[in-house]
Amino acid sequence: MLGNFVYSNPTKIYFGEDSLKGLYEELPKYGKNVLLVYGGGSIKKNGIYDKVMSILEECGKAVTEDSGVMPNPTVQKLYEGCKLARDSKADLILAVGGGSVCDYSKAVSVSAYCDTDPWEKYYLKMEDVDNRIIPVGCVLTMAGTGSEMNGGSVITNPEQKLKIGHVFGDNVMPKFSILNPVYTYTLPKKQMIAGLFDIMSHILEQYFSGTDDNTSDYVMEGLLKSLIHSSEVAVNNPTDYEARSNIMWIATWALNTFVAKGKTTDWEVHMIGQAIGAHTDATHGMTLSAVSIPYYRHIMPYGLEKFKRYAINVWNVSPDGKSDEEIASEGLTKMEEYMRRLGLVMNASELGVTPDMLEGIADSTLIMTGGYKILSREDVIAIVKESMNQ
Amino acid sequence: MLGNFVYSNPTKIYFGEDSLKGLYEELPKYGKNVLLVYGGGSIKKNGIYDKVMSILEECGKAVTEDSGVMPNPTVQKLYEGCKLARDSKADLILAVGGGSVCDYSKAVSVSAYCDTDPWEKYYLKMEDVDNRIIPVGCVLTMAGTGSEMNGGSVITNPEQKLKIGHVFGDNVMPKFSILNPVYTYTLPKKQMIAGLFDIMSHILEQYFSGTDDNTSDYVMEGLLKSLIHSSEVAVNNPTDYEARSNIMWIATWALNTFVAKGKTTDWEVHMIGQAIGAHTDATHGMTLSAVSIPYYRHIMPYGLEKFKRYAINVWNVSPDGKSDEEIASEGLTKMEEYMRRLGLVMNASELGVTPDMLEGIADSTLIMTGGYKILSREDVIAIVKESMNQ
Repeated sequence: MLGNFVYSNPTKIYFGEDSLKGLYEELPKYGKNVLLVYGGGSIKKNGIYDKVMSILEECGKAVTEDSGVMPNPTVQKLYEGCKLARDSKADLILAVGGGSVCDYSKAVSVSAYCDTDPWEKYYLKMEDVDNRIIPVGCVLTMAGTGSEMNGGSVITNPEQKLKIGHVFGDNVMPKFSILNPVYTYTLPKKQMIAGLFDIMSHILEQYFSGTDDNTSDYVMEGLLKSLIHSSEVAVNNPTDYEARSNIMWIATWALNTFVAKGKTTDWEVHMIGQAIGAHTDATHGMTLSAVSIPYYRHIMPYGLEKFKRYAINVWNVSPDGKSDEEIASEGLTKMEEYMRRLGLVMNASELGVTPDMLEGIADSTLIMTGGYKILSREDVIAIVKESMNQ
Repeated sequence: MLGNFVYSNPTKIYFGEDSLKGLYEELPKYGKNVLLVYGGGSIKKNGIYDKVMSILEECGKAVTEDSGVMPNPTVQKLYEGCKLARDSKADLILAVGGGSVCDYSKAVSVSAYCDTDPWEKYYLKMEDVDNRIIPVGCVLTMAGTGSEMNGGSVITNPEQKLKIGHVFGDNVMPKFSILNPVYTYTLPKKQMIAGLFDIMSHILEQYFSGTDDNTSDYVMEGLLKSLIHSSEVAVNNPTDYEARSNIMWIATWALNTFVAKGKTTDWEVHMIGQAIGAHTDATHGMTLSAVSIPYYRHIMPYGLEKFKRYAINVWNVSPDGKSDEEIASEGLTKMEEYMRRLGLVMNASELGVTPDMLEGIADSTLIMTGGYKILSREDVIAIVKESMNQ
């Protein structure tokens, strides 16, 4: 039910093939010093780096580079970035990359002027921000995480074996994000489909809760149907602008808090997936795909009505002459077939999970409430085992 | 197709039964002087006025009242409001009411410090705002127009027989809006269903354009299905919180620019409906309901694929063994049945349209491009005539 909530999302989106021009609108709003954040250097190969640098120069900015942001940005990297931001007196942090680069930039933005340890304050203790925040802008090169239009920021502490996400408020959301679907064309297929399933999982984690009549569920069904259709096109033709643009826009709306309104969520697929990630270093989206079908088959009896609705509304399952269980199950079968067509990893063994890891994975899995079933430790082990056999 | 666009919507929404408390968060952000704008006084009968005034006092505000905003706010009223806003040195305009009160408040916000005639500058010439803007906040008491989360503002000049809407930019959008579904409970049934169809029409005006694969269409199908379901509940039980809250939230998202992305629109149902309104002073939503089915049957052959999709995805029409025309037509029949169940006006004669008005209505109808058919003058007359016979 749409109970009491606040919706606030001030991020300005520039979308489309010409969207980089948005920098000319935005850059003059900030001071001279820009901290340019990016990852391993793919933006130098595909030319985006040169285009961005050229506009920064045109706008008279003094640029300090903070490169080498890793897929799971570490707390050590964060400390270095904070020093760079302070030393360069950054007036704006410009993130050019995917979700990790955006997440990291938001972490630096709240941490640079934090007078205690930001890892402890913002990630371990989840405290609110009460210090100066450096504004962040994003040029997105990958669709999936939704970080371009939310306050989320995941940071990893490898020594403590902790990977923690803090969802900050609207004061930490990017001031602007540039979304050019063409920038996603060059992504390797494996990364593209992992991102696709990350998007689908974001929607499903919110969809599979509640038994009420909530507008958010109807909107999510629309987003899912559009995602399924566009992903089948994009996987065969990665340069199909229409498909890639739909996917990029769906990724943003899957996790910018709109469809979360009125929903309780346990994010349990992410919880199990992240535990597998911690033990195997496997790609995030693939850990989600490997456990999703076993997980959903496991909880289906506890949310049967919703799984039936999912089958009919999203996967066009005909209900005629079938029991609720048959309808719901057929929906998951169609989802599985779709996932196999895309080429997603369905078996946890392929991610490096071995039987001796099962106890450890169960230890690392956070058990949340808000979904159709609060998992037991045995449930988690059974789900991962099923994934290893599918 | 999702081409180049900018999405920016900074309005902060406080939603739910306790949402009025959001005033405690927002009021301290502005100076002492508040211009309180409302309509004919229903907020005094239902107690909302007292609640708002009490919070304004608690927050130490000096309140100037601007009441009597009419359903179609006039330019004369606007001039008076501008003087009140200037004389009281308003730091914030607080609109308490429905779409007209919100529209009018935005008009005052951009016009109070306009050094030429605001009617000419902002409505006749549609110029951009280059003067001081007084921030606006809304407490919504009616669901329908979406004015609570967009830059739209419609003002009427009765002497010039002109009713013009200007969609201002994100700098004019309300800074915050309070959406309490309970406030809509006391609305008379006729106004409620007129508002319901206004919402549906906003979505359909955007939906029926284009032949591409656009995520916005999928989202709109979700919004339509949720609206149809919740409206059938609310019309029988006006105090069903779940239904009224879904309706209020759908109204906001139908017209806050999200679902417009990638869509061309002609808003032709509104164009004909507004022409009828100019000649009969009929309720806006009822002018839309009276012409919608004749209009859509008229343009159906030019957008057959979309009407077929609409029938299947929104109205659950089974396509088995039917021609495209039969499927599409059955969708419109189901829509008509739904409209009659709600109790909407289907026949323009009931709104006071007489045969001698037909030429005048055609004269007053703006013909727009962007839909499936650019109407001729004869088309408009035929559509209104069909409405008079249905």
